[in-house]
Amino acid sequence: MAEPKKVCIVGSGNWGSAIAKIIGNNALEKPDMFAKEVRMWVFEEMLAVPDLVESAKDADILVFVIPHQFVRGVCNQMKGHLKEGVVAITLIKGFDIAEGGGILLISQVIRSTLEIPCAILMGANIANEVALENYCEATIGVKSAELGATLKALFQTRYFRIVVVNDKETVEVCGALKNIVAVGAGFADGLGYGDNTKAAVIRLGLMEMIKFCEVFYPDCQQSTFLESCGVADLVTTCYGGRNRRVSEAFVKTGKSIEELEKEMLNGQLLQGPATAAEVNIMLKSKSMEDRFPLFTAIHRICKGMIPAKDFLECLKNHPEHL
Amino acid sequence: MAEPKKVCIVGSGNWGSAIAKIIGNNALEKPDMFAKEVRMWVFEEMLAVPDLVESAKDADILVFVIPHQFVRGVCNQMKGHLKEGVVAITLIKGFDIAEGGGILLISQVIRSTLEIPCAILMGANIANEVALENYCEATIGVKSAELGATLKALFQTRYFRIVVVNDKETVEVCGALKNIVAVGAGFADGLGYGDNTKAAVIRLGLMEMIKFCEVFYPDCQQSTFLESCGVADLVTTCYGGRNRRVSEAFVKTGKSIEELEKEMLNGQLLQGPATAAEVNIMLKSKSMEDRFPLFTAIHRICKGMIPAKDFLECLKNHPEHL
Repeated sequence: MAEPKKVCIVGSGNWGSAIAKIIGNNALEKPDMFAKEVRMWVFEEMLAVPDLVESAKDADILVFVIPHQFVRGVCNQMKGHLKEGVVAITLIKGFDIAEGGGILLISQVIRSTLEIPCAILMGANIANEVALENYCEATIGVKSAELGATLKALFQTRYFRIVVVNDKETVEVCGALKNIVAVGAGFADGLGYGDNTKAAVIRLGLMEMIKFCEVFYPDCQQSTFLESCGVADLVTTCYGGRNRRVSEAFVKTGKSIEELEKEMLNGQLLQGPATAAEVNIMLKSKSMEDRFPLFTAIHRICKGMIPAKDFLECLKNHPEHL
Repeated sequence: MAEPKKVCIVGSGNWGSAIAKIIGNNALEKPDMFAKEVRMWVFEEMLAVPDLVESAKDADILVFVIPHQFVRGVCNQMKGHLKEGVVAITLIKGFDIAEGGGILLISQVIRSTLEIPCAILMGANIANEVALENYCEATIGVKSAELGATLKALFQTRYFRIVVVNDKETVEVCGALKNIVAVGAGFADGLGYGDNTKAAVIRLGLMEMIKFCEVFYPDCQQSTFLESCGVADLVTTCYGGRNRRVSEAFVKTGKSIEELEKEMLNGQLLQGPATAAEVNIMLKSKSMEDRFPLFTAIHRICKGMIPAKDFLECLKNHPEHL
């Protein structure tokens, strides 16, 4: 029998709390697999750094659930203070920016800074609804089947249902790209289009997400897009979610994204336009803007290069329909 | 050069009118491919039958867009009066009932009664929005690539965008099964669940649609579910659509489906519960109810065999999560 594994959550916010409750319960219910004491280092804007090392040093599993912009700093603090054989899993949506522009996945930052394996958990998971124990699903992406089974045991409950896939990049990339598509859905709503058009925007967005992964992460599998991290999270984000809402206001008010971030988000960055800009750098570097007319049009509209009313015009020769 | 093809629309209603406008314009714009005169026999509850034969007898392409319950009668009237080499395409959502119960596809009825090939067009296409020329997509399912190219030329416009696939059964089956899933989405709404749970219901519904096709139509391809006929039409139906609406009322009012059909639909049959019942006959015949817990729970709830509040409980051991 292996020793029960020690878990340390590097967490903050509603999502951190909701997931700590799940992990805590599972650790109590499965004492053969997990140590009863689950440590949670609560992230508060880089205070309490000595505690971080103290909390993490004995951990076998590190669970990252903090704002993406602080991952690099946290990892640098922990570096050299971790146990042999420790593994990580990230629940962080968003991405880091690569040198020269373009998307760098959070799991890549963790993996390269700490030199440990890093799995991913993503899905249609609004934190408050998970905390209420409402039924939902999530996807874990991890290469090793053995680690996948351990992580499933750590996260799955009767109401929080997990599917494990080995296609880890796709799981994480979906969580970034869906926000671009949600901006497009918001444009369609703002322009007054109905269900048909919105459905077409969401589906063409999904097809460009798949194409993007095929180009930049060639090991990706189409079936992963049918998981919770893919189509389910995409749909939820395109019907609810702040990217859709702010983008609808963008069309209706004529204000810039920056103005709306100030007015509607207390100055927080809206993720969809930022991701669209980074993705655009990657597409340009391969001369592939034409093959991604939806991503490209959304970026150009956010930047004021073309008017929002031309959005659908940009989709009228989509490569999907040739 | 082949002769321009003569088209006859056997149509009625808003969808018939919207599609007649598209076909009429395309025939005018492509005189090499299609005869300018497009005949439309307007279906009015089985009146004017001699006209039907007269309208259809010279046609090279028959376009069916009438209520599904009248297809058999119309085909029987035309039988023996059609031109050699004529082909059909059906835009009809819904299905016929096989002897002994279970789903019989409308294209199968047309194919077996008239002994001609029959393609399918389905998608997220609300008739009024198509008539307004709002941007949308549809999927044509047809085995022959040559016929596929002809039909794409007949239907595609700048705003009505077509993808042709050869997996024709899946295109048509999606149009029936999505209504079952929409009933589940309505239950989730009626029970007061939020976005996470609804996303899980829609995704598990999609997975059961795929599994159903794998069992009963083994040539199906997973990629077809990513087309407009699949995920796009499903999502639209689960957010808008009367199956969702009546099913939400079912949970909130405690009335039976039959009562709600009278009150909310002027006595028209709600397609989701009817399809769930026919699908249940097919699943029972293969002892497969357990492998389709969502379809099965929806059927049992509609029939009053279990209370709606147990819906999510039925999904807690879904085979997707094992």
